[in-house]
Amino acid sequence: MPHLPLMSHSSHLSDFFNVENNDAACQARAGRISTTHGDILTPVFMPVGTQATVKGVHPMILQELKTQIILANTYHLYLRPGSELIALASGLHGFMGWNHPILTDSGGFQIFSLRDTLKLDEDGVSFKSILDGSMHRWTPETNMSIQHQLGADIIMQLDECAAYPATKQQVCDAVVRSANWARRCLHFHLNGDMNARVNPSQALFAIVQGGVFQDLRMQSINSLLDIESDAQRFNGFGIGGYSVGESHEQMFQSLGDVTLALPLDRPRYLMGVGNPTTLLRAIALGIDMFDCVLPTRTARMGTAFSSEGRLNLRNARFKEDFSALDSACGCSTCKQHSRAYLRHLIISKEMLGATLLSIHNLHYLINLMKEARDAIIAGKYTQFLDSWLSSAAANDY
Amino acid sequence: MPHLPLMSHSSHLSDFFNVENNDAACQARAGRISTTHGDILTPVFMPVGTQATVKGVHPMILQELKTQIILANTYHLYLRPGSELIALASGLHGFMGWNHPILTDSGGFQIFSLRDTLKLDEDGVSFKSILDGSMHRWTPETNMSIQHQLGADIIMQLDECAAYPATKQQVCDAVVRSANWARRCLHFHLNGDMNARVNPSQALFAIVQGGVFQDLRMQSINSLLDIESDAQRFNGFGIGGYSVGESHEQMFQSLGDVTLALPLDRPRYLMGVGNPTTLLRAIALGIDMFDCVLPTRTARMGTAFSSEGRLNLRNARFKEDFSALDSACGCSTCKQHSRAYLRHLIISKEMLGATLLSIHNLHYLINLMKEARDAIIAGKYTQFLDSWLSSAAANDY
Repeated sequence: MPHLPLMSHSSHLSDFFNVENNDAACQARAGRISTTHGDILTPVFMPVGTQATVKGVHPMILQELKTQIILANTYHLYLRPGSELIALASGLHGFMGWNHPILTDSGGFQIFSLRDTLKLDEDGVSFKSILDGSMHRWTPETNMSIQHQLGADIIMQLDECAAYPATKQQVCDAVVRSANWARRCLHFHLNGDMNARVNPSQALFAIVQGGVFQDLRMQSINSLLDIESDAQRFNGFGIGGYSVGESHEQMFQSLGDVTLALPLDRPRYLMGVGNPTTLLRAIALGIDMFDCVLPTRTARMGTAFSSEGRLNLRNARFKEDFSALDSACGCSTCKQHSRAYLRHLIISKEMLGATLLSIHNLHYLINLMKEARDAIIAGKYTQFLDSWLSSAAANDY
Repeated sequence: MPHLPLMSHSSHLSDFFNVENNDAACQARAGRISTTHGDILTPVFMPVGTQATVKGVHPMILQELKTQIILANTYHLYLRPGSELIALASGLHGFMGWNHPILTDSGGFQIFSLRDTLKLDEDGVSFKSILDGSMHRWTPETNMSIQHQLGADIIMQLDECAAYPATKQQVCDAVVRSANWARRCLHFHLNGDMNARVNPSQALFAIVQGGVFQDLRMQSINSLLDIESDAQRFNGFGIGGYSVGESHEQMFQSLGDVTLALPLDRPRYLMGVGNPTTLLRAIALGIDMFDCVLPTRTARMGTAFSSEGRLNLRNARFKEDFSALDSACGCSTCKQHSRAYLRHLIISKEMLGATLLSIHNLHYLINLMKEARDAIIAGKYTQFLDSWLSSAAANDY
């Protein structure tokens, strides 16, 4: 594939994100992300399909849930079945048979969560496969190549995620290295090299790091913005390094200032967060995108979000409870199946139990994002959030 | 619920089964079973939902597959969640949220497959729970009560399944005891007792036993027919005790004479058989109904029926095979997903792999039964069968 002039790339994605409404009383905003596989209305929750499938949920049902975009994990797919094989299938869309938007993470989070097995230097990182112990090496450039092969609509820079707790110096080092890698990712993404193909329809997000140190957060943002020029810009910003052990209040204190420092014209993606209450509070601070394994992982363990707060279906009190899982919910699970039946499936370790609860939990978050968006458009987001926080549903942490 | 006069019950189900077409060249026939939850066109394959769910397949997808009737296992549901709990949900239809026909087996097959843990006498059988080792006792009457609580459209008599291999005397004893229990099941089913409810919309099938001994098969049939009177009849006949270790040819030799000895006006159900070729050969001998875990169990192991015979998707030759699972198949799995993707899901132990292959395998058998029925109606069943037997698809044993 021929290399594309920079301006063409830049102009192609110039209408990548549009803010359609700003709430007058807080930072919440309703926007639209445009990709070649369809538009994404924000705020949006992205279900996680780690290994090119949202665990337990058939793609037809994902569509019925009005899933706008799913996330897939570069680390897992690179190891198995391999990004080259997925490229042969015309990328993840072709491989999965999913014709809607996809985002891939860089895999950095997975690599750095296995700190014992990696070797890090300025140029890149070497790591051990969880599948067979084999050694692999990624640089920002090879990581971009892999994500180009996967072909998602939105791709993420390779970054270093500091552990929590970490010393300030460790976090500072990670911020500096991540910004350096962001520059190299952006350059390679837009220009490729002699062998690499460049796909002008893929959007690249940088990632803000800095842990709980607010000055490092600001340093991270400034470094990323310094990289940009009129012709070379990131299409959005991920915000990483939260939800790794710090308290919710620590995160919210930090997050408000982070979003204020980010450009208004690019989407902001709070990575790896899935608690309903956290989502709604983060939206008030100006976050547009979320992903998390929480709705599907907790479903497999028998736990459901609900208007009463979280419910553990294993609880004996549901044994003869023939009412709907959540009478306030309109999903197919709540319309067709009782708590007693769901409990039976979970206790009996039947796949359908995980499936029905995953459908409900995904619908719950997708619908919550739609309600949040409607409230923003109506100019009533702070009332919507206050009402939520005083309800039983907020008991979801 | 008041007890129902015998004549009323008998008349209610008088149009339970109608043969609509007989093939001129063989015993194959196309029929219609009428239940309060809908009609069933025969020949029919019934997917197995052991624990009140067809493993890995969402009920919405079962409906899209045009599943006419599913089978549920009395043994498993009696132990967990318990038939009394299911009765509180208005039976299996209410409990599962499945408004189409259901058949329950008696549980006899499961009990007698664990011979070491049971105590058998003329009146009934005591057995140990596989879940917690607790002891339970069933008589023909208590078994009918349990199946009344489960509320399936078609229920099966409690029978004794002889082991294979067994001495002729052992098989003879099982035939005599099963006929005795059939008589008691029929009486209790139609009349109940002071405490039991009777559901006039439930149809009861007797079960023919006799193993590979043809004289005992005939003795079994004659004993069952002797039980009947104008007012008290079985609604159909299961044929048990095949596919337990004998050869296919032994089974077909025996089966032809068995169906010829059974009444023309009642459906014949060959229990526990699911090989496509076996189904088609049995239809030629006059069988109307089948059930088997084979399509879903083999799917979970990565094996698919196909027009090329069985395919094991774990095979490395499918790694980069981006063609459809079976290009001759019109199911959603074959339309949307490649062999390479299915292989990735199976190798990665993703639930969706089992789900997509289960959908395909169920569609395969459901569609095969529809094609068989069409061939019978067109008067061309023997040609249809010959064509099948000479094709690669017949390589499915």
